[in-house]
Amino acid sequence: MARNIQSLERAAAMLRLLAGGERRLGLSDIASSLGLAKGTAHGILRTLQHEGFVEQDDASGRYQLGAELLRLGTTYLDVHELRARALVWTDDLARSSGESVHLGVLHQQGVLIVHHVFRPDDSRQVLEIGAMQPLHSTALGKVLSAYDPVAHSEALEADRKAYTDRTVCEPDRFEHILDITRARGYAADVEETWEGVASIAAPIHDRRRMPVGAVGITGAVERLCRDGGLRPELVAAVRDCARAVSRDLGAGRF
Amino acid sequence: MARNIQSLERAAAMLRLLAGGERRLGLSDIASSLGLAKGTAHGILRTLQHEGFVEQDDASGRYQLGAELLRLGTTYLDVHELRARALVWTDDLARSSGESVHLGVLHQQGVLIVHHVFRPDDSRQVLEIGAMQPLHSTALGKVLSAYDPVAHSEALEADRKAYTDRTVCEPDRFEHILDITRARGYAADVEETWEGVASIAAPIHDRRRMPVGAVGITGAVERLCRDGGLRPELVAAVRDCARAVSRDLGAGRF
Repeated sequence: MARNIQSLERAAAMLRLLAGGERRLGLSDIASSLGLAKGTAHGILRTLQHEGFVEQDDASGRYQLGAELLRLGTTYLDVHELRARALVWTDDLARSSGESVHLGVLHQQGVLIVHHVFRPDDSRQVLEIGAMQPLHSTALGKVLSAYDPVAHSEALEADRKAYTDRTVCEPDRFEHILDITRARGYAADVEETWEGVASIAAPIHDRRRMPVGAVGITGAVERLCRDGGLRPELVAAVRDCARAVSRDLGAGRF
Repeated sequence: MARNIQSLERAAAMLRLLAGGERRLGLSDIASSLGLAKGTAHGILRTLQHEGFVEQDDASGRYQLGAELLRLGTTYLDVHELRARALVWTDDLARSSGESVHLGVLHQQGVLIVHHVFRPDDSRQVLEIGAMQPLHSTALGKVLSAYDPVAHSEALEADRKAYTDRTVCEPDRFEHILDITRARGYAADVEETWEGVASIAAPIHDRRRMPVGAVGITGAVERLCRDGGLRPELVAAVRDCARAVSRDLGAGRF
């Protein structure tokens, strides 16, 4: 019983293929991308379509991801204990900081956003729940890499892309930043991922003192920084939020 | 090639099982619920876990849905043309009506919420993207049932539950309400699904005049109704929004 089930692995690979790049693909593209015979690929796609995981465009015959994934993904959030505990505290953080708040957990080689509170103004904002952020350049990612050994390995193995000319990509400099993160208890990203945008994040621990996620604020560098550094009251607000969620998860106070 | 792939069907059934009711289940519960041998169920679960679709709780050994579903579900939204076209118009509707806005499409036997704009006040609200609503009692569901023949069949076949003492469950009365919906061009739900809550919805058509979704507002019955009826300016705002999105999808103006 040590082997995984091939048709399931192939189905998962198809869903990942449809989630990246083109997002609407024909049967031939899917079969050739995965090195499968057309008949084999079609059998898997038809079953995925029948279960609602894949939809087929009437006009073009191309395949795309299906609605059942959204329904199941939302149910995943409903059972997410960290997210449930963090709802009230992240709302408070958005109000006190005036910035948008993100809650992230390690997923594959990145940070999966499991909760997002909009910046409390009237501006139009795009919901980022379910989006991925890089481990090496964002404040959330650096916190996870500094505290979670699995995230640390993933960040070192990942292809660390330079998003701006401030992104730290070299292993030694990255390790140094993680040392600073652990010493300070929080991480920052000042225009290392997005031009003009800064973020601050702190770790969340559970009752066994395991790092289970990170919470942070993100906003215009002009609002988050002052006199060349992060505004200390914002760092304090982020760390207060992370401590409050950790306590709610049963972590000790000291 | 007419048969679907059994291991995929079983995997999908497991994910649906974990999405409903208990949401954290042990191997024995899963195997017995689906009528599978434990070894068979374990092989599928292990592959699902390896692909990130299922996670196993360290302490209890129980299984729950995995993070990859959230990532894929969000990608589904990113390629959703109706949702992309509706983003700006639904924001405007929330502002002009002062109520929360939902965009829904038919999925299985219900309405899947693919977009949700919060009521523009400072109140705490729970995001409902990915949630399901019943076809027979909500304004969104009645619109889909009135205009989409597939939704109509699903609504008639579904178990039409009485959520309040105002819910219309009998087939004849339900059909009569759908006739009224088609005649008026919109549907309402006044405390038929939730006590104290009303909603108003209108259909969205694409360039081929096919009904592809519904958009509506939901709020306290005291705000949506006046003198025993729906406030006409709110009905107009909902219908304006539905027409604007339809035009953006290429539907003709008349």
